[in-house]
Amino acid sequence: LLDIVKKLLAGDKRALSRAISLVEDEDDSARDIVRELHPHTGQAHIIGVTGPPGVGKSTFVDALTAQYRKAGRTVGIVAVDPSSPFTGGALLGDRIRMQRHSLDHGVFVRSLATRGRVGGVSAATGAIARILDAAGKEIVIIETVGAGQSEVEIMKYAHSVVVVMAPGLGDDIQAIKAGILEIADLFVVNKADTEGAAKTARELEMALELRSPGGWRPKVLQTVARMDQGMAEVVTALAEHMAYLKSGQGWRERQVRSAEAELQEIVARRVMTEIFRGPHRTDSSSLIQMVADRLCDPYAAADRLLEIFFSTTKEKP
Amino acid sequence: LLDIVKKLLAGDKRALSRAISLVEDEDDSARDIVRELHPHTGQAHIIGVTGPPGVGKSTFVDALTAQYRKAGRTVGIVAVDPSSPFTGGALLGDRIRMQRHSLDHGVFVRSLATRGRVGGVSAATGAIARILDAAGKEIVIIETVGAGQSEVEIMKYAHSVVVVMAPGLGDDIQAIKAGILEIADLFVVNKADTEGAAKTARELEMALELRSPGGWRPKVLQTVARMDQGMAEVVTALAEHMAYLKSGQGWRERQVRSAEAELQEIVARRVMTEIFRGPHRTDSSSLIQMVADRLCDPYAAADRLLEIFFSTTKEKP
Repeated sequence: LLDIVKKLLAGDKRALSRAISLVEDEDDSARDIVRELHPHTGQAHIIGVTGPPGVGKSTFVDALTAQYRKAGRTVGIVAVDPSSPFTGGALLGDRIRMQRHSLDHGVFVRSLATRGRVGGVSAATGAIARILDAAGKEIVIIETVGAGQSEVEIMKYAHSVVVVMAPGLGDDIQAIKAGILEIADLFVVNKADTEGAAKTARELEMALELRSPGGWRPKVLQTVARMDQGMAEVVTALAEHMAYLKSGQGWRERQVRSAEAELQEIVARRVMTEIFRGPHRTDSSSLIQMVADRLCDPYAAADRLLEIFFSTTKEKP
Repeated sequence: LLDIVKKLLAGDKRALSRAISLVEDEDDSARDIVRELHPHTGQAHIIGVTGPPGVGKSTFVDALTAQYRKAGRTVGIVAVDPSSPFTGGALLGDRIRMQRHSLDHGVFVRSLATRGRVGGVSAATGAIARILDAAGKEIVIIETVGAGQSEVEIMKYAHSVVVVMAPGLGDDIQAIKAGILEIADLFVVNKADTEGAAKTARELEMALELRSPGGWRPKVLQTVARMDQGMAEVVTALAEHMAYLKSGQGWRERQVRSAEAELQEIVARRVMTEIFRGPHRTDSSSLIQMVADRLCDPYAAADRLLEIFFSTTKEKP
């Protein structure tokens, strides 16, 4: 194990890959790896990229990576993918994503499958981002599909959050904008060569007007990622945001936000595993049946379950 | 309180509205309401409607409601909306949604704001769906925007899950299809009068081919909800699915699935509130700081926090 850690810190790609797998699979050694690497983290600029489906996020991340590589910076990517129920693996897999940068040793891409996880997606994402950080990647990109609550959670691990949009996504876009407005540090209207791009950008600007004054003001940029257009401006805006964070309390606030999200998720996971899958499995299962059969309401069942749980933990040494 | 419950059961719309507000606001009386109403639930057909943004879900739900109303059935709708950070309320509010059915006493619409909730969205949704059920709504529709993990969680409260798609949503749609394929009982390609509808339907059919044989086989229907086209077929397919569930173990399985999701969420919420906001707030806050400052890794912090938590609960009477 220490061998993996040592090799990883020395830049060995295979050791990096192995370490991530262990963390992803929640192997017992995962926590040792995280612990060993923890002091080596804190160097990378962690950039979150999210937005609704169909806006060209993968292409955008690809173009952003190319831009950073041109400047000689190393890049690690964690793509959080909804996984295929058939293959069990990530659908938009590493293979597809790797194409452009497959021969470039300065880029490391990893897809994280969400399938079968009970709320553990974002903690794993955070851990993997930190591993990439420890491995010396100067830029770590976390990419998620969607713009719901789970994406907001995942974005807490990023220092800078980029929300990618595209023209003409319909009415629902209003809702997404609102939900994600608070966490965005930069808006990008991608596919800016299609109709309505200026209008979408204007709407975003207007929505931002409503934010309370003071603090960081997100820019709204336009890109055509497919043709590498506007990407230099994105890199500049991200560097400006980082400088802003470092100039004040922002940097530490982001560290705390990330630590809080991860600690909460690890704790929730442990407690829930214990209650619903561990030694209390029989109790929780029979209470679930009782609620299903309407012999008990869910609040009363929760009371009972917590009572059992705590009275048992009480007797622990 | 019993007055609200009594009036609600008698069909009083204001009492229904009040009860939902109390549950949504997590008022202390919420659990009493849920408990009192619990025995009166189990009559409604709870239909979940989800899908990516821009496919016309709200219009679809509107048309579906109209279809059920034509058949004389009462309808309750819970729309889970990402909320505006400015107004604090639901963005695609009840007002907009109510327009078509605003004078119809057989329809009750409620938007549930997701803002500021820590993972409590789906439990509240489940509780509200049950209140609508107890209030005598024969059809209860749960509508969510998105197709991520949180939507999958919310859909666990439905007996029948409708996934709405539309032609030409781009590459990411592949990922969404995969993530949501398992939970769908019916696929609808809306906006079927636009280019590519047949292709999208065919792709869905092909994806379904890969499902293991046996069990319920989701249909793929095409609609133009805006013009009420194809909606009768949707209602028929949903009735067929309900008949299928009732004919075998399916019905009970759905009840258990819903009870499990709700119980897990209530328990998680309580434990997390206790650890991170309750009496252990100081401990958790200082551990978060230590992780942020890299004085402690997150797993060790979680160990320590659970240790404190359990040793304290031990001393409780």
